Amino acid sequence: MTDQPSYAAVHDALRPEAASFDIAAAPTRLDDLFADKEAAKASCEADAWAIDELQDRLYAEGQRSLLVVLQGMDTAGKGGTVKSVFAHTSPMGMEVTAFKAPNTEELAHDYLWRIHKAVPRKGHIGIFDRSHYGDVLAVKVLGLQSEEEVEARYEDINAFERYLCRTGTKVLKFFLHISKEEQKERLQARLDKPHKRWKFSKADLDSRALWDDYQRAYELMVQRCSTEHAPWYVVPSDSKSRRNAAVARIVRQTLEEMNPKAPKVDWHPEDWVIS
Amino acid sequence: MTDQPSYAAVHDALRPEAASFDIAAAPTRLDDLFADKEAAKASCEADAWAIDELQDRLYAEGQRSLLVVLQGMDTAGKGGTVKSVFAHTSPMGMEVTAFKAPNTEELAHDYLWRIHKAVPRKGHIGIFDRSHYGDVLAVKVLGLQSEEEVEARYEDINAFERYLCRTGTKVLKFFLHISKEEQKERLQARLDKPHKRWKFSKADLDSRALWDDYQRAYELMVQRCSTEHAPWYVVPSDSKSRRNAAVARIVRQTLEEMNPKAPKVDWHPEDWVIS
Repeated sequence: MTDQPSYAAVHDALRPEAASFDIAAAPTRLDDLFADKEAAKASCEADAWAIDELQDRLYAEGQRSLLVVLQGMDTAGKGGTVKSVFAHTSPMGMEVTAFKAPNTEELAHDYLWRIHKAVPRKGHIGIFDRSHYGDVLAVKVLGLQSEEEVEARYEDINAFERYLCRTGTKVLKFFLHISKEEQKERLQARLDKPHKRWKFSKADLDSRALWDDYQRAYELMVQRCSTEHAPWYVVPSDSKSRRNAAVARIVRQTLEEMNPKAPKVDWHPEDWVIS
Repeated sequence: MTDQPSYAAVHDALRPEAASFDIAAAPTRLDDLFADKEAAKASCEADAWAIDELQDRLYAEGQRSLLVVLQGMDTAGKGGTVKSVFAHTSPMGMEVTAFKAPNTEELAHDYLWRIHKAVPRKGHIGIFDRSHYGDVLAVKVLGLQSEEEVEARYEDINAFERYLCRTGTKVLKFFLHISKEEQKERLQARLDKPHKRWKFSKADLDSRALWDDYQRAYELMVQRCSTEHAPWYVVPSDSKSRRNAAVARIVRQTLEEMNPKAPKVDWHPEDWVIS
């Protein structure tokens, strides 16, 4: 039996009051919830096994799905989070979609078109590595759309997510929040360690130079788009193991509340003879 | 250090001479290669970790991909195989596509259209849970196409897979071969165990009634479509742990031979200052 923080404690730590969300005051470390790295790893591992079992039930039920949205500055750890939280989930019931700059076909459509196409099928867990929030983050910071357009997008995104929720797709959103100092260390590691060097991109530095603008865009994103049906969790992410453990707690609880059940069959086992 | 059978031994056991392949003589048990279940599990686990590391390199390289095709009678264990062999592979670099009866849009196209769409992107491992081989298996057994058409399809499929191979997608095909007795036990278990009952489908019995016809279709599939560029491995699958371990050996070896490498960067770490 692993000693894990209660769901309530994790919620309290991760879910800010949306309207008054102040990103400068939001912690990037989560030392209180997990005693140390080892405790966090054990908690994540226990939850990852539980998520596997819950996903099997979701698949068997075949009626609803879960969409996990991940956003964060470069190096915040979207990949690492997925790998740990879904370490034991069957690849047959899960699909990850990475959203990069839209291609020409995607640009020929409205911005939610490619997102909607990637919504997980019933019975599956879908994971978005970046998402439609790029359309109110990078787009806003780089001034590619007017303020009015971005405000309209928050509203459209909320309506879209409410629609998903109503039609059986539960939406969970995690903003992986790191400090500027921590990002510096992680980018430096990409330069210093030869096996990480391929990950380094000049574009990371361009985004870093706009750090404050991005922080403001994330803040607004949480203020405008953290809703009851599709909450934003702000995950202190300077510690990788605690970040993973916190996300795993929320995912597990969400699936437990969904409480998926294999369909009842309308026959008796004795009805069938296997020759 | 796990005591694992050599790649050569696994190849010899799994890769029949295509032209003379005799399915009735092909074993459904693989007791010689792995001493017992525990040894098989340990071997699979060691390979699954190695596959994870190799997949990271494939992703970093971003130039080639691996396509793993799984076929077999109901209960042969496609899902279980994927879960064990890719237990440690990051979901971000892997995509599973399950092919069921084609929908109306798919039927409005040629039979390889939906297959081609699902070919893994560069850097990824793609897994097909059933595949275009349904178009020479079920289609043949149910008499939905003429013999001439099915013969033409073998040729077209070989050409398609050769094309994939030439354009950077390595193709590995595993036929999970179980005995009729073993299937009976596994179907009975679906009836007997309440938590497995939702998996039972009358369609499984319909296919089982055509067992001999399916065996003949699998035999022809291997004879016609096991090629140097895209070999069929016939995996004795009555023992789940040995089945998984054998597939893991082949996948690992294939990735090792591909030997993916992260791209060399054209700058020096000192060129960058992270402020």
